[in-house]
Amino acid sequence: MGFFLWGFLTDFFTYETTKSVVVKSWSVGIINRIVQLLIITYFVGWVFIHEKAYQSSDTNIESSVMTKVKGFGYLQNQNQNENYQNRVMDVADYVSPPQGSGVFCIITKLIVTENQFQGRCTEVSTHSTQCFLPLVSYTPGVITGACLKNSNESHGMCEMEGWCPAENDAIEIEPMDVNNFTIFIKNSIRFPLFNVTRGNFPPTMTAEQIKKCIYHPEDDPLCPIFRVGDVLHHTGQNITELLSRGGEIGINIQWECNLDLNIENCIPKYSFTRLDAPFAKNAVSKGYNFRFAKYFKTENGTEFRTLHKAFAIRFDVMVTGKAGKFNTIPTMINLVAAFTSIGLGAVLCDIILLNFLKGAEQYKAKKFEETVPLLLSVTYFHFPVIRLCPPTLHYQDTNRSAKELLNGADSDL
Amino acid sequence: MGFFLWGFLTDFFTYETTKSVVVKSWSVGIINRIVQLLIITYFVGWVFIHEKAYQSSDTNIESSVMTKVKGFGYLQNQNQNENYQNRVMDVADYVSPPQGSGVFCIITKLIVTENQFQGRCTEVSTHSTQCFLPLVSYTPGVITGACLKNSNESHGMCEMEGWCPAENDAIEIEPMDVNNFTIFIKNSIRFPLFNVTRGNFPPTMTAEQIKKCIYHPEDDPLCPIFRVGDVLHHTGQNITELLSRGGEIGINIQWECNLDLNIENCIPKYSFTRLDAPFAKNAVSKGYNFRFAKYFKTENGTEFRTLHKAFAIRFDVMVTGKAGKFNTIPTMINLVAAFTSIGLGAVLCDIILLNFLKGAEQYKAKKFEETVPLLLSVTYFHFPVIRLCPPTLHYQDTNRSAKELLNGADSDL
Amino acid sequence: MGFFLWGFLTDFFTYETTKSVVVKSWSVGIINRIVQLLIITYFVGWVFIHEKAYQSSDTNIESSVMTKVKGFGYLQNQNQNENYQNRVMDVADYVSPPQGSGVFCIITKLIVTENQFQGRCTEVSTHSTQCFLPLVSYTPGVITGACLKNSNESHGMCEMEGWCPAENDAIEIEPMDVNNFTIFIKNSIRFPLFNVTRGNFPPTMTAEQIKKCIYHPEDDPLCPIFRVGDVLHHTGQNITELLSRGGEIGINIQWECNLDLNIENCIPKYSFTRLDAPFAKNAVSKGYNFRFAKYFKTENGTEFRTLHKAFAIRFDVMVTGKAGKFNTIPTMINLVAAFTSIGLGAVLCDIILLNFLKGAEQYKAKKFEETVPLLLSVTYFHFPVIRLCPPTLHYQDTNRSAKELLNGADSDL
Repeated sequence: MGFFLWGFLTDFFTYETTKSVVVKSWSVGIINRIVQLLIITYFVGWVFIHEKAYQSSDTNIESSVMTKVKGFGYLQNQNQNENYQNRVMDVADYVSPPQGSGVFCIITKLIVTENQFQGRCTEVSTHSTQCFLPLVSYTPGVITGACLKNSNESHGMCEMEGWCPAENDAIEIEPMDVNNFTIFIKNSIRFPLFNVTRGNFPPTMTAEQIKKCIYHPEDDPLCPIFRVGDVLHHTGQNITELLSRGGEIGINIQWECNLDLNIENCIPKYSFTRLDAPFAKNAVSKGYNFRFAKYFKTENGTEFRTLHKAFAIRFDVMVTGKAGKFNTIPTMINLVAAFTSIGLGAVLCDIILLNFLKGAEQYKAKKFEETVPLLLSVTYFHFPVIRLCPPTLHYQDTNRSAKELLNGADSDL
Repeated sequence: MGFFLWGFLTDFFTYETTKSVVVKSWSVGIINRIVQLLIITYFVGWVFIHEKAYQSSDTNIESSVMTKVKGFGYLQNQNQNENYQNRVMDVADYVSPPQGSGVFCIITKLIVTENQFQGRCTEVSTHSTQCFLPLVSYTPGVITGACLKNSNESHGMCEMEGWCPAENDAIEIEPMDVNNFTIFIKNSIRFPLFNVTRGNFPPTMTAEQIKKCIYHPEDDPLCPIFRVGDVLHHTGQNITELLSRGGEIGINIQWECNLDLNIENCIPKYSFTRLDAPFAKNAVSKGYNFRFAKYFKTENGTEFRTLHKAFAIRFDVMVTGKAGKFNTIPTMINLVAAFTSIGLGAVLCDIILLNFLKGAEQYKAKKFEETVPLLLSVTYFHFPVIRLCPPTLHYQDTNRSAKELLNGADSDL
Repeated sequence: MGFFLWGFLTDFFTYETTKSVVVKSWSVGIINRIVQLLIITYFVGWVFIHEKAYQSSDTNIESSVMTKVKGFGYLQNQNQNENYQNRVMDVADYVSPPQGSGVFCIITKLIVTENQFQGRCTEVSTHSTQCFLPLVSYTPGVITGACLKNSNESHGMCEMEGWCPAENDAIEIEPMDVNNFTIFIKNSIRFPLFNVTRGNFPPTMTAEQIKKCIYHPEDDPLCPIFRVGDVLHHTGQNITELLSRGGEIGINIQWECNLDLNIENCIPKYSFTRLDAPFAKNAVSKGYNFRFAKYFKTENGTEFRTLHKAFAIRFDVMVTGKAGKFNTIPTMINLVAAFTSIGLGAVLCDIILLNFLKGAEQYKAKKFEETVPLLLSVTYFHFPVIRLCPPTLHYQDTNRSAKELLNGADSDL
């Protein structure tokens, strides 16, 4: 029993290593080393240094955005609405929704229809002899089917039911100048995987500095206050058209953080795009507008409303980020891939060595040892060995195999 | 020195390859090739073709959603509110919030409590002799503790402080029919990793086409206009109940883009789910409703309000996406894994070869060369070699080892 | 032709395995096994069990949040506004926006400026002899440049154009007590990769249980109803200051799901942070406030408004998640990396074996077989072999190489 255990232990604590053939050939040797060098260069330069494959990364960013707009504008409005003529608009008037979230609109143009009551009246836009229900085009109310016209006219206007008088949105008005408005953006992010929290301006910035600065891509890339005109300019779009028809602007805050370096290098990068750019070729639904109403009551309690068709620039503050930090798993996997890849260079060299080089047959003979199944080889092997060579010869042969083969073959047969 | 360098270079530019044993056995050979074939098939078919392991992928999608609802509805309301009786509701009335963001509500039912002033009055719902403060159940105001009842009654109603009269939300009203409303969705996305921007309808679609089309999963899968009734129908829910109690509907836009192919194949896929489905089994908080108020002023400046309990269908347009593009790092890692895995087939063959095959001992002898430490082997090895075999014999032995062993052993001892 | 095919098949269905040298040395054997043990332990313990490298993971969570606030508060307001004096605030008054989305504000303090009309009046805050346009500091309207002062005074007040009278936000008022308000959060998530949908409270929870419970990290970690005071307390911030100046609170719902286990273990974990914490060191823009207006009309149709500067606590319900499920690709890659890494242990052992051990030269001789290009070796190799040893000797040599070498060399020359 003890002997058995000893035998097992002796067998267990052996070390097995592959037997190698060393080829002293300059041509193959140089090819071998060059291939290895290329592979090492690729892994060190591209995989490890450029692509940072030794890091695990987190793109699942947690972000909170707070915005605050400042500025005053004059609303040059249509003449018939005295309430809106040359009105000074402040933040409570033109920012919607007012809560300062990451998505907000700055209203640049308002088509106002005051004193709408529920009832029946003529539609404004479509003139027709047949007042059927239009399927797609916008009508400001439910078409009743009746056609209101004077007896001597062939064409009239459709009657509609709903809020009357109907909105006439065909009028042309000048948009409000919002270029000098400023947007203050407070963005705090967290990478949950690494539990790292950052803000979009450094804690060393004083309140005085922040109040005075204006964002500039080169001169002041960390200032959190953006001039609306600058933002629109950075998108490369026609500002006049944007103000007049509305539009969607993306303010992208990109966090690319290498957490192996100083955390102070983990700073945001801003970029600005027009979000409806993919639809530039379609003529449909250009710009951005929405309708909202303010509700009032007459003395006797009847509700009426003021309808607003608001053309606005919508800002979407979108935060994307990626943090990387050293992690053993990707490092191990990539290191193993690197080491194994170096070995793959040998495949190429073997092909050259065994096929195209002078002396290929010699190398083949060196590299490959052939063995044939026992049943075929037994006559071919067994007897000549015994007859021609004394067993002591085996001590001289450093290969244990021949001797064992004999013994093995003996005991098997 | 020059000689030393030369020696170093000679050593450096050598090529080392493993010595292999070639087993000419049909059984093992066939097993070997079948295992290799299976592994190659798995890697080519599953890992590379199906799972696209040669691509790096980006799921961190940047998305902007703009929505616009169209349609008119009649609000069949309770009799006592003349303001809301058979009112025609338009977008400004029933969509909340109005800005056309990715999350919006279509109000289907309104319980309206008009002319609420601050003060004290009786609560509507709970009739009780003891007016204590209820902890959880909804009361429309702060319970003062007083119980208002006629002297001849045993039960009365609790007095409350707040907006009076109190809301009575127990009344039954018919929901508005919103099935024929349409939702226009404009979604532009970007994969920041690959800097690819896409819109949810192709740029070749004209304004005319878009205005006329209605989304259909098979017939018109790219039309960005959705009939509300269709959307509700696709969720497989009871539409009558949804309209009556409200609900949360998810409109999922899924982008699965293989950027190695034509970018035109990168198109969205829509799916519709009821988001409160995981809570279907709990009887709590079914449906979806919220309260909002419109504020008015009397002539003498006192503020009063109209409270609305709105039952609504909330639509959450949720955009998910994944883009894949060829990248050398995952390709390298998976290729190395593939090649190494093919080698793993040899482990299986070795087990069969060395244990279960006829002639296993012979193979073992071929594969393994044994060596024992020098101190033990020296007597066993050294002398017989010298005595029995002339050194010239070593030239015949293609193994350089025995000769070197002698020399090495000599110089060591 | 048939013979050629047969030969090809015989060659194809052979099995090639590396020739190994077995070193029967206790020292190297033990080192070898220890290194292998360490590598296996690392892979099994860290890579597979701890880091779950056998799973593919999805962090791209799809989430929908519905919130509902309950509670009443008293607004202790400035004396001059009778409308807001000791007003009972309900949900429709203090929650903004009212739709119950994942981001909402609870207003704690209101600075109300009633009856603002468009016009010109004096600014409240800045007293100056020179009324130039201030760039950054907040003014409630457009400064006209005129300075309104009595003739006998040296200092006056600037005239502004806009909504008059101007807001005076310097007054001190007590915030509303919101500690006892409750927030009900309904969160349903989906992992699109695995198509798994979950809700934030178990379906076994009855409506009664949910109505009565209050979230507690240890005692009731799955209750979806949160006391506002508890949430503020969990952030570790000064609650009095939070109520008075406003603030942004993050309610993080973290889903960490191992989908290989029972799906019932896939439950949310709540945590609470103050989101503006990264800006704590900057003195700028502490707290959270926004302005909104209610619009009214006089009898003769002139619009006027009530401006509110609302100090609020904004709650951002942020949902992050990660689901993992067994997947063959990462499993294969990591297994291959593991197996290959075990092989890397051999590199260490080889270095020890070939350099530091007694008998290193002997091992070297065993492991490496040298071969030199044919042109050099031909004299050195060919003739002695033929002269000294009879060809029959080759049968005794288990290496096929020497014999083949001769043949090969013969035919080549």
